[in-house]
Amino acid sequence: MKLSQGVEWAAHCCLLLAHTEDGAAVPRTTLAGYYGLPDAYLAKHLKSLVRSGVLAATSGPRGGFRLARTPGSITVLDIVEAIEGSTPAFVCTEIRQRGACALAAERCERPCGVAQVMYDADRAWRDSLRGVTVADLKDKLPDILRKRARAWLKDPSGPLPALA
Amino acid sequence: MKLSQGVEWAAHCCLLLAHTEDGAAVPRTTLAGYYGLPDAYLAKHLKSLVRSGVLAATSGPRGGFRLARTPGSITVLDIVEAIEGSTPAFVCTEIRQRGACALAAERCERPCGVAQVMYDADRAWRDSLRGVTVADLKDKLPDILRKRARAWLKDPSGPLPALA
Repeated sequence: MKLSQGVEWAAHCCLLLAHTEDGAAVPRTTLAGYYGLPDAYLAKHLKSLVRSGVLAATSGPRGGFRLARTPGSITVLDIVEAIEGSTPAFVCTEIRQRGACALAAERCERPCGVAQVMYDADRAWRDSLRGVTVADLKDKLPDILRKRARAWLKDPSGPLPALA
Repeated sequence: MKLSQGVEWAAHCCLLLAHTEDGAAVPRTTLAGYYGLPDAYLAKHLKSLVRSGVLAATSGPRGGFRLARTPGSITVLDIVEAIEGSTPAFVCTEIRQRGACALAAERCERPCGVAQVMYDADRAWRDSLRGVTVADLKDKLPDILRKRARAWLKDPSGPLPALA
């Protein structure tokens, strides 16, 4: 079981976007440049974040991306589900309805014990991701990294605050 | 993110094997027949369960598979990890060490905030799966299904107790 690489990229881009002070839109190339991400691949994931209402996009010469809501109201689960969807990782193919001892479909209206355990674990996973917001991630960043993010977003061609 | 189909098959086979009364080995075809599973594909997953110490295999004319431990000491996590491995679903590629604002590796000895949230959620998922054993799954089966499983394991060509 593997999460797509887009999850890592999307989470870090949202964290970076939480550092725009005036809510200005950030061009895709500025986001990609901060983390050295391939611009074209990143586009796909940013689109998914917009579609899910995590980011808002504006077009035009000063266009780009910004968080669609406050950092405190965007959870890591919102970001993960924007990229991966909300379908549980376990796919039940109802094998109890197959084979020599098959049960009729009308006896299988509720999930079997195996599927239920898997769905419960999936819920625990999502609950855990729902418990952390982009604001929480930002709060945990060292101060110098917050300063560097702000400087980069303001002017990617300008100097960055030096690391201690 | 998707779990492989082998997880469903493996969990149901372990549940079925919890119904052997004398710990006798069950041929692979008997396991496959109960759920209508493709015999050859199932072999691969049974092998993984043996490699992980969930099942024990015996060869020869009366050979087959049995649980390697008591049903109460085999968790659903044991089964899932036998098939999927124990590597977290989130793969961190350390993008903070790339791009225009790259951090040196020696500043990245601890996981970043994003990776930590993902690892915590992974742990919550595994903890949930660890909380349920094969014995728990068996206990939740309706009595008639337990009877049918026992009858099938004893003699797959014999009659099965009728469903009410």
